[in-house]
Amino acid sequence: MFRSVEQLFRPRSVAIVGASDSGAGGWPRAIFGNLEHAGFPVPVYLINPRRERLWDREVYPSFASLPEPVDLALTLIPAESVADTLADGLANGLKAALVFAARFGEGGDEAGGARARELAELCEKGLRVCGPNCMGALALPESHLFYPAERVRSLPRGGVGVVFQSGGTFQYWLSQGAVRGLGFSYAVSSGNELDLDVADYIAFLVDDPETRVIACMLEGIRRPEAFMAAAAKALAAGKPIVAVKTGASERGRSATESHTGAVAGDDDIFNAVCERYGIVRCHGLDDLIETALMFATARLPKGPRVAFAGYSGGATGLFLDYASEVGLPVAALSVETKTTIAPLLDRGLQPSNPLDGGAGLAGRQADFRQICKAIADDPGVDILSMQGQLPAREDDRADPEVFAHAARGAASVVAHGRMGQNVTGAGRAFQRAAGVPFLQGLPETVRALKALGRYAERRGRGAVPARGPATPLSGTAAELLAAAGVPEPGGGHAANAAEAAEVADSIGYPVALKIVSPQAVHKTEVGGVALGLGDADTVLRAAGEMETRLERAQPGARRDGFLVQEMVEGLETFVGLRDDPQFGPFIVAGLGGIHVEALGDLAFRLLPIEEADAREMLDSLRGGALLGPFRGQPARDTDALVRAMLTAGDVYLGVRDRFADIEINPLTVLAEGEGVRAVDIRETPRR
Amino acid sequence: MFRSVEQLFRPRSVAIVGASDSGAGGWPRAIFGNLEHAGFPVPVYLINPRRERLWDREVYPSFASLPEPVDLALTLIPAESVADTLADGLANGLKAALVFAARFGEGGDEAGGARARELAELCEKGLRVCGPNCMGALALPESHLFYPAERVRSLPRGGVGVVFQSGGTFQYWLSQGAVRGLGFSYAVSSGNELDLDVADYIAFLVDDPETRVIACMLEGIRRPEAFMAAAAKALAAGKPIVAVKTGASERGRSATESHTGAVAGDDDIFNAVCERYGIVRCHGLDDLIETALMFATARLPKGPRVAFAGYSGGATGLFLDYASEVGLPVAALSVETKTTIAPLLDRGLQPSNPLDGGAGLAGRQADFRQICKAIADDPGVDILSMQGQLPAREDDRADPEVFAHAARGAASVVAHGRMGQNVTGAGRAFQRAAGVPFLQGLPETVRALKALGRYAERRGRGAVPARGPATPLSGTAAELLAAAGVPEPGGGHAANAAEAAEVADSIGYPVALKIVSPQAVHKTEVGGVALGLGDADTVLRAAGEMETRLERAQPGARRDGFLVQEMVEGLETFVGLRDDPQFGPFIVAGLGGIHVEALGDLAFRLLPIEEADAREMLDSLRGGALLGPFRGQPARDTDALVRAMLTAGDVYLGVRDRFADIEINPLTVLAEGEGVRAVDIRETPRR
Repeated sequence: MFRSVEQLFRPRSVAIVGASDSGAGGWPRAIFGNLEHAGFPVPVYLINPRRERLWDREVYPSFASLPEPVDLALTLIPAESVADTLADGLANGLKAALVFAARFGEGGDEAGGARARELAELCEKGLRVCGPNCMGALALPESHLFYPAERVRSLPRGGVGVVFQSGGTFQYWLSQGAVRGLGFSYAVSSGNELDLDVADYIAFLVDDPETRVIACMLEGIRRPEAFMAAAAKALAAGKPIVAVKTGASERGRSATESHTGAVAGDDDIFNAVCERYGIVRCHGLDDLIETALMFATARLPKGPRVAFAGYSGGATGLFLDYASEVGLPVAALSVETKTTIAPLLDRGLQPSNPLDGGAGLAGRQADFRQICKAIADDPGVDILSMQGQLPAREDDRADPEVFAHAARGAASVVAHGRMGQNVTGAGRAFQRAAGVPFLQGLPETVRALKALGRYAERRGRGAVPARGPATPLSGTAAELLAAAGVPEPGGGHAANAAEAAEVADSIGYPVALKIVSPQAVHKTEVGGVALGLGDADTVLRAAGEMETRLERAQPGARRDGFLVQEMVEGLETFVGLRDDPQFGPFIVAGLGGIHVEALGDLAFRLLPIEEADAREMLDSLRGGALLGPFRGQPARDTDALVRAMLTAGDVYLGVRDRFADIEINPLTVLAEGEGVRAVDIRETPRR
Repeated sequence: MFRSVEQLFRPRSVAIVGASDSGAGGWPRAIFGNLEHAGFPVPVYLINPRRERLWDREVYPSFASLPEPVDLALTLIPAESVADTLADGLANGLKAALVFAARFGEGGDEAGGARARELAELCEKGLRVCGPNCMGALALPESHLFYPAERVRSLPRGGVGVVFQSGGTFQYWLSQGAVRGLGFSYAVSSGNELDLDVADYIAFLVDDPETRVIACMLEGIRRPEAFMAAAAKALAAGKPIVAVKTGASERGRSATESHTGAVAGDDDIFNAVCERYGIVRCHGLDDLIETALMFATARLPKGPRVAFAGYSGGATGLFLDYASEVGLPVAALSVETKTTIAPLLDRGLQPSNPLDGGAGLAGRQADFRQICKAIADDPGVDILSMQGQLPAREDDRADPEVFAHAARGAASVVAHGRMGQNVTGAGRAFQRAAGVPFLQGLPETVRALKALGRYAERRGRGAVPARGPATPLSGTAAELLAAAGVPEPGGGHAANAAEAAEVADSIGYPVALKIVSPQAVHKTEVGGVALGLGDADTVLRAAGEMETRLERAQPGARRDGFLVQEMVEGLETFVGLRDDPQFGPFIVAGLGGIHVEALGDLAFRLLPIEEADAREMLDSLRGGALLGPFRGQPARDTDALVRAMLTAGDVYLGVRDRFADIEINPLTVLAEGEGVRAVDIRETPRR
C-alpha cells in the first residue's frame, strides 16, 4: 500500500538533470549551492548534453554516460523533456526522481495530461517520482537539501516531519516554524503527487524514529484508502498528524437527489476522517505552527481539563470566551491547591481557574513558579497553560526554570503569550531551556489546547475499529431496521382512500396519512402528508385532497395508495447513510426533519461507529439540548437514538452493495424509555 | 454627556503624589524617568510628606504647600490614602487625577466600596479621575508619558487612539502595534472607570484631529447611553472604532421567564450595538492590530467586493475557504482586466479572482505591479489584497513602489502575508514607503477586509436613526399588531369545550385548539395545543383531554377556556422585543418556533430598525434559506415578515412603559403574497 520514499530522502548518489547557471529560474545552481553548503553529503553528478564543465565539475550528457548509476534525479528540465530523460535514467539504474516542472495536466490540458501519462508509465516500471510541479525535498538528518532556496540551509533539525502539497507555502512555513523554534526531520513539497503521495510520506515519517509530529498542508487526497491506513498507523504510533486542508468552501457538491448527498460536502467527510484517525485539523498556517510546536514539545496529557494561570485580567476574560467558543473543558482547582496559591497572589485577588494573579505577580517569578507547580500537581488538572512571553534579548532577567519547574508536575504544560510577537535567538534559547512550547495568541492557544486534550482522548480509545467486509443483508431497509429494533410507527399500506380509512380504524386515532407515489419523493412538498387526523371521515377527505394535489403538481403521477401511521410525537432527527466516493461509507445525523438542509446542524462520522462516536455526534449538535429535559419537555430517549444510529450504520454496511444511500427522516425520538420511530425510511437503489 | 479628559491628557502641570524611589512597585520613579526622558514637557512637582528631596528636586508635603496649583495628580499611593489626599488637592486647585491603586471595590468588598464612594464624592465636586486600578495614560503629541514603563518611550506618534480597560494588556498591545507600524495619538488604561469612562475618551478622540482610528479593549460599559452617543459621533466623523470585548461566554444571564430574556445574552446585545453604530468588533488582540493597521492606512472603499492577488496556489485555496466562512463578497474581474493580466501570469495559469499568478511571478515585480494596478482599476473591484511580505533587511531588493502603484488605482489596497512574521525597522520603513497596510495571517486578513467593506457600507447608510421618545400606545399587543397589519389567525376565544366546538364550526375546519391558563405559559409543554382538528366531535374530545392533562401537570391550575384558530401552514419564525437593562429596546428574530432557544439561530438589533436592518437580520440566519424557494417549497412572504418586524418594533416602542417584553412565537410566514400570521402573541407586563 505504501511506496518507498527511501530513495528520495536517502539516496546514495544524485544527479542534477538540467544543470546550468541560469536555466530553470536558477534552481539547478541553487540546489547545487545548497548541497555544496552541506559539504556534499552524497555524490552529486551533473547532467546536461549542452555543457561539458560547470562549477568545476564534469557535466555528463546523459544517464548512460555517468560513471555509476545514481539513485535520485533532481530533474530541472522543461516538462516536454522529462519523460524521455527519465526513461534514459530508468534504463541506467535510476531509482527515483524529483520533478520540478509544472504543466503535467494540472489545468486539465491535453498535452499536459499526455506528459503525465508517459511519466506514470515509468512509475509503473518502478521509478519513484516526487512531483511533478513540486519544489523539492529536505532530509535534515542526512543534510540532503534538495531544494532551490538558500533559506532552507538554516533550518534546524528536530522532530517535525512535513508534507505540503503547496510548494511556495512550504518553504515559507518551514522558515516561520524555525523562527518559532520548530526543528525538522524530513520535509517534502509533494506537488501533483503523480506517483508518491501524502500517504507514502506519512508512512515513512511514522517509521522514522526522529519524527514525533507530522505537519501537512493538503489540497486533495489521491488515495483515500492509503491515506486512512497511514493515518491509522500514525495514531497507533502516537505521532500526531496536524493538518491544514483547503477546500472547506466546496460544499454540497452532490446533486440534490437525496438530503444526505446534498448536505455532505467533501469537507464534512474529511472532518469525519480526522475524527476517526485523530488527525488534528488546523484552521490556518499560524495554527499549524502553534499546534506542531505544542505536540513536538509538550507531554501528552492524561485528559482534556485545562488550567490557565497568569497575571492579566484581560487575558483571563478572553480565555473564558475562547474556551466557551471551542468547548474547552476548564478544570476545577482543588481546595488544597487554592489554599496553597491564595497567599501568593496580589492582594485582593482570589485563587480560581482561569487565574489572574494580579499585575504585581508578573514581577514575582518565585511566587508564579510556586503557583504553577501547585496547579500542575492538582489531580483535577490535565493541562496547564502558563502566561509567558519569550525574552527578546539575552540579558532579559526572565528565568526559564519557572516553566521547567511546573513542567515537572503532573500536568502537561505549555506557555501562552497574549499576541503574536517577534521571536529571536534569545527567545528560542529560552524556550529550549524551559522545555515547554511558548504558544502565541490566545485564540490559537485555546484551539491548540483543545486539540491536545482531544488527541489524548482519541489515543486513549485505542485503535480505530476495522472496516471489514460486512455480510450482505437481504430485505428492505425498513425490514432490516425493524428487525434490529428500529421500528416504523404502527400502521400499514392502503390501496385507496377507503382502505386508508379502514386501516386507520384498525390502529386507532389520531393517525398520520401519507400519499405513496414515485413522483412524490419529498411528500411534504406536494402536500402529501396530513397529521393528527381524528376519525375515518377526516381520513377519507384528506386522502381525496392529496390525490387532487398530486395530480395538480405532477399531472399523470402514478398513485400507489397511502401509508396510514400511528401519530408519533417527539423530536424529529435525521439519520443518513451513504458511500462517499473517496472515503467510503459514512453516517450523518442531525436535527430538523425536513429542515435538515437549511439548518445544517449535522455531525458526520465514517462507518463503522462505536457508541462513543454516536454520543459525540449528538453532543456536537447545536440543537443537542433538545434531547435532554428542555423547558418542561421531558428528556428524549437518547439511548434509543444512539442504538438506532449504531443499528442503522450496521444495516447500511450490509446493504450498500444494493443501496446508494438510506435516509431515516424523520427518525422521531420519543420520551425517555419509549424508543424511537423511523417515521420515513427511504433507500436509493444503486444505479 | 461627555466629561472633559483635557486635564488628563493635556495638563499644564502635574504632581507625582507618593514620589519615592522604591515605593509603589517603583512606578513613581518610572513615571518620573519617562517625563525626564521626554524633556519635562510640563512642570512636574513631587509630593510626599516623608521626603524632602528626591531626584535633585524639592519634595512637597501636600498640595497646599506647592508653589502653584497643579492640573493633574499622578496618584501613586495606597488605596486607603487616595480620597483624603485628593480632597486636599481639590481644595488647592487640582483638576484631575490618575489613580493607579486597586482595591476600590472591584472584588465586591465593603471597605473598597466605601473608598470608591469617597472618591466619587470628589468627582461630583468637579475632580476628573482616570482609574482607579488603571496603569496610566499617554498623550504622544504632548509627549506626556504618564505611564510607569520604559517601553512606552519608543511608541511612535500616529493616528490610532487607544482606550483599554485592561492595564497589563494595554502596554503590551501598544508595543506590539508599534512593531507592526502603528502610531498612536492618545492612549489610556481606563481601569475601573469610577469617573471618566470609555465614552468620554472616545468623544475626546473623535474631536482630536490627529486621531483617525479608535482601538478599544472593553470588559463592560459603564454608561451605555453615553457610549452609544460617542459611537454615533465617531461614525458621523468617519473614525472607525475597532474593539475587542470580553464576556462572549456570559450567555443566557436572564431567568427563563421568556424566550427573549433567555436567548439574549449581554454579548448578543453588544453585537447589536456594534451593528447599529458601525463598531468593528474584533475576535482578539491580534485581529485588533490588523484591523487598526488597515483602517489607519488604507482608504475607505466604495463597496465591499474584494479581489485577492498573489503567486501562491495554497494561499488562494485558503482565501476562498476563509471568504466563504465570513461571507466576504468576492469580486468578479472584467474581461478587460483578464485580457490585460493573462499574458503576465506564469505559463498555464488563468486570470481569475482569487488570482494565483504562479511561483515565477514572485520574482517578476514589474509584472506583479502591472497586474495589481489593472485589478485595482477594475470597476468591479472595491478592495484589492496583494500578496506581500515585509522585507526583514534593508538590503532586500523588494520594491515598495509595486504596492504604492496599485494603491493609486481606484480600489482600496492592502497587502497580505500568509502568516505572522517578525517585523523589523526595515519592514516598517518599507510599509511606510508602500503606503499600504501589510496584514499578517490569512484568516485575520479576510476578517479585516470583511470589516472594511462592512464599515464602508455602514458609513454609506448615513446617520443612525434617532431613538426619540415614542408616543405611548394603548391596547394589547395583539390589538396593536393586528391594527398595524400583523394579524392573528382567524378564530376566537371559547369559555369551555362546547363553545370551542361552536367557534370551530363558525370558522370552518381544520382548526387549531389551544388551552388558555396562566399556568400554561408554554402550551406545547403541557399538551395544551392540538392542530388540524377536522370536525366538532374531535374538537370536543381534544378540549376535554387538554383539561385533564393540564390538571395532571399543574393541579388546581386556573382554566380560562380555549383559543380556537384557523390552521396556519407556513414557516415558523420567532420575533421577540424587549428592553435590555443597559442598551434599551431591542428586537430579536429567528427560526424554529418552540425550538428557538435550542437552535439559537437568531439575529439581534437595537430598536428602532429600518428595512435594511430587518433584511440583514434575516440574511444572517443560518436557516434563512428556508424563506426562499427551497426544495420544492414555494418562497415565503419575506416582505411581509420584514414589514411585521418593523411593525412589531414600532409597537413595542409605544408600549414598553407597560410591557417588559412582547413575543410572537410562532410568527408564521405564509407563501409569497399571503402575509404572516401571529399565531401566538405573548406580552409580559412590567412588574
